[in-house]
Amino acid sequence: MAGKVSPLAPTSYPEMPEIEGVRIATAEAGIRYKGRTDLLFVGFDEGTTVAGVFTRSRCASAPVEWNRARLGKGQARALVVNSGNANAFTGMKGRSSTTATARAAADAARCTPDEVFLASTGVIGEPLDPAPFERHLTQLSGSAGPGRFMDAARAIMTTDTYPKVATRTIEVEGGSVTLNGIAKGAGMIAPDMATMLSFVFTDASVPQETLQACLVEAVRGSFNSITIDSDTSTSDTLMAFATGTSERRGVAAIPASGPVFNAFQEALADICLELAHQVVRDGEGATKFVEVKVTGAVSDESARRIARSIADSPLVKTAVAGQDANWGRVVMAVGKAGEPAERDQLAIFFGEHRVAVDGERDPAYSEEAVSAYMKNSDLLIAVDLGMGSGAAVLWTCDLTDEYVAINADYRS
Amino acid sequence: MAGKVSPLAPTSYPEMPEIEGVRIATAEAGIRYKGRTDLLFVGFDEGTTVAGVFTRSRCASAPVEWNRARLGKGQARALVVNSGNANAFTGMKGRSSTTATARAAADAARCTPDEVFLASTGVIGEPLDPAPFERHLTQLSGSAGPGRFMDAARAIMTTDTYPKVATRTIEVEGGSVTLNGIAKGAGMIAPDMATMLSFVFTDASVPQETLQACLVEAVRGSFNSITIDSDTSTSDTLMAFATGTSERRGVAAIPASGPVFNAFQEALADICLELAHQVVRDGEGATKFVEVKVTGAVSDESARRIARSIADSPLVKTAVAGQDANWGRVVMAVGKAGEPAERDQLAIFFGEHRVAVDGERDPAYSEEAVSAYMKNSDLLIAVDLGMGSGAAVLWTCDLTDEYVAINADYRS
Repeated sequence: MAGKVSPLAPTSYPEMPEIEGVRIATAEAGIRYKGRTDLLFVGFDEGTTVAGVFTRSRCASAPVEWNRARLGKGQARALVVNSGNANAFTGMKGRSSTTATARAAADAARCTPDEVFLASTGVIGEPLDPAPFERHLTQLSGSAGPGRFMDAARAIMTTDTYPKVATRTIEVEGGSVTLNGIAKGAGMIAPDMATMLSFVFTDASVPQETLQACLVEAVRGSFNSITIDSDTSTSDTLMAFATGTSERRGVAAIPASGPVFNAFQEALADICLELAHQVVRDGEGATKFVEVKVTGAVSDESARRIARSIADSPLVKTAVAGQDANWGRVVMAVGKAGEPAERDQLAIFFGEHRVAVDGERDPAYSEEAVSAYMKNSDLLIAVDLGMGSGAAVLWTCDLTDEYVAINADYRS
Repeated sequence: MAGKVSPLAPTSYPEMPEIEGVRIATAEAGIRYKGRTDLLFVGFDEGTTVAGVFTRSRCASAPVEWNRARLGKGQARALVVNSGNANAFTGMKGRSSTTATARAAADAARCTPDEVFLASTGVIGEPLDPAPFERHLTQLSGSAGPGRFMDAARAIMTTDTYPKVATRTIEVEGGSVTLNGIAKGAGMIAPDMATMLSFVFTDASVPQETLQACLVEAVRGSFNSITIDSDTSTSDTLMAFATGTSERRGVAAIPASGPVFNAFQEALADICLELAHQVVRDGEGATKFVEVKVTGAVSDESARRIARSIADSPLVKTAVAGQDANWGRVVMAVGKAGEPAERDQLAIFFGEHRVAVDGERDPAYSEEAVSAYMKNSDLLIAVDLGMGSGAAVLWTCDLTDEYVAINADYRS
């Protein structure tokens, strides 16, 4: 964990309500880190449905493969997450660690291994010893209790400088349902997820297919629209667990469509977006939170590729770090994307300040006004291509010497 | 220009021979830089053929468009290059600057504007005042003389810390021909060229189509196989000029095929590779020169995409900067590329040290031996996918805090 908290961290945290059917415990298992919690156990009531979205990396980690294989059954009784070791690229040993961990959790939670879901984050390539898990899981399962979502968010941190949580409560037929989300992620972050783990828990009753559909929709405009350093990890995981305990209070299950479905979908998407933004704000070395907005492209997909080109450009990101409204580099990044673009139809904005139009610097350009704008910690870079109606929004952060310092020293 | 010379700079420079038919002069025109040369004039004898390869950026600069439009004629009498201002994204004004510069050069060199080729490198988006060109070009043309290739290489530098030159002389029927190359480039460098200007001059007699074919072949495995920061510039230019003056000495023109053609092709490719490597070695903030080699892919193109994913990864590059043989990040970069890859068939090498095989760390892995290897300034990262015979090689450098420091301060 980095020494100081990101300058972009939130200034306050929400009260995280309890979610009936979700029980949490954390431990210092000493898997890699000393003097902090690194093991999270979450137990779920019977009947909890589960959905998940994972990295598209062609070299996914063992826990990711484990989860994918069990998602079809759609039932979860336990989630075990460890930080410090990603159990990725660990070959046969990695798979047997995964199996051993799941068995230990199943024993402790009194369920089957197929109802256990796993996630690991941290160093890649180091074998993961299952012994700490075996040592702690029974006790964790026994002592797991309601609430404790901040504890959970802390136990899964790696180079994060602050825990990431979000909560929403919505009114539906029969009463309210609550969704709580936690996330971690600070480096190795790019769309198609990132090392980025995020878990959302709700007391709503949601059939597995509905939950999966909501999650897939929610991830698109949130976690799949952020990039810190363009490096897509081996271990990205976003999962949702719905305990259904709200049914005991008379709240009907979430249907597959209609206004109640929409309200639930929106709450889930909101939580994912809030967490995704928090992940960006904790980007390693970040000092600026940047929204990259592209409009007027020939298609949404084209706009997205252009936005990504801008958001991933080291030259754009270092300029932002230097508080320099260097739109020339934005032009470069637009051109680099290989998408249809007419240089002389581009318009480029920093915030509301249009700095370039019709192929050259804006006649009304004020260096003073734009420089003042660039001192903000939250910035907007907008490009209009003037060629169609395709649009996209991504979020990223700047590239600073601290990112380099952190990552030239990581594997110690 | 950065204060100190790259630690990867060559320790000696070749003697650059004269090329008959090529006359060089440089000046301090004060376009942006003070106290150093920033304007290069090269005059060519009548009959000089020209070939060129340019950026694929969709937002190419005005000089690039000018050159492309005149390449078809295939004849060159003058080349004018300025550093400090790229005359890119300067709209109508940019085009008229280009025209005015070409006219001034044509007047000075006593040729037509269509025989004048241009290049500009430096800041994007600032209008380029043609006045300094008009002021200096007549005098430059008049004083241009043989040799002076090092002077030329110096005049075109921007954030380069050393001038880049290369030379080859080959024996062909009737005598020898010489090729001299100069290049610049340190930031905003990625395949599909970079801001990267390179010019090769030869006294060989080469028909335009043959020269163009040779150049296209030469760029593939050289300038299009390097990346410093993945940012493809608006201004990349590689041009070759063949004066044909060797015919006066009894050397026949280079034919379109056969052993003489092959020798010429090879010499041109060698020069381009040597210059491309020098550009990488002067990458902003670079301390390591890295060859990324991928073998065993399903195709050469697939291997190339994977190599690029590794070579462009901020996490791989910062690990290299930290002298850390962090193969886990190499796995991540392979997975990120989206190309066919079987995690359990990967083998990863740093130099000759195989660090991972069959999906996990190599049993023979020696932290000591590999750490010692990583202290070298020239490194090899090799990945074998074990899936086919596709192969590719790219070159890159590490990502350091100095890159950030340079680029967070560039537009001053």
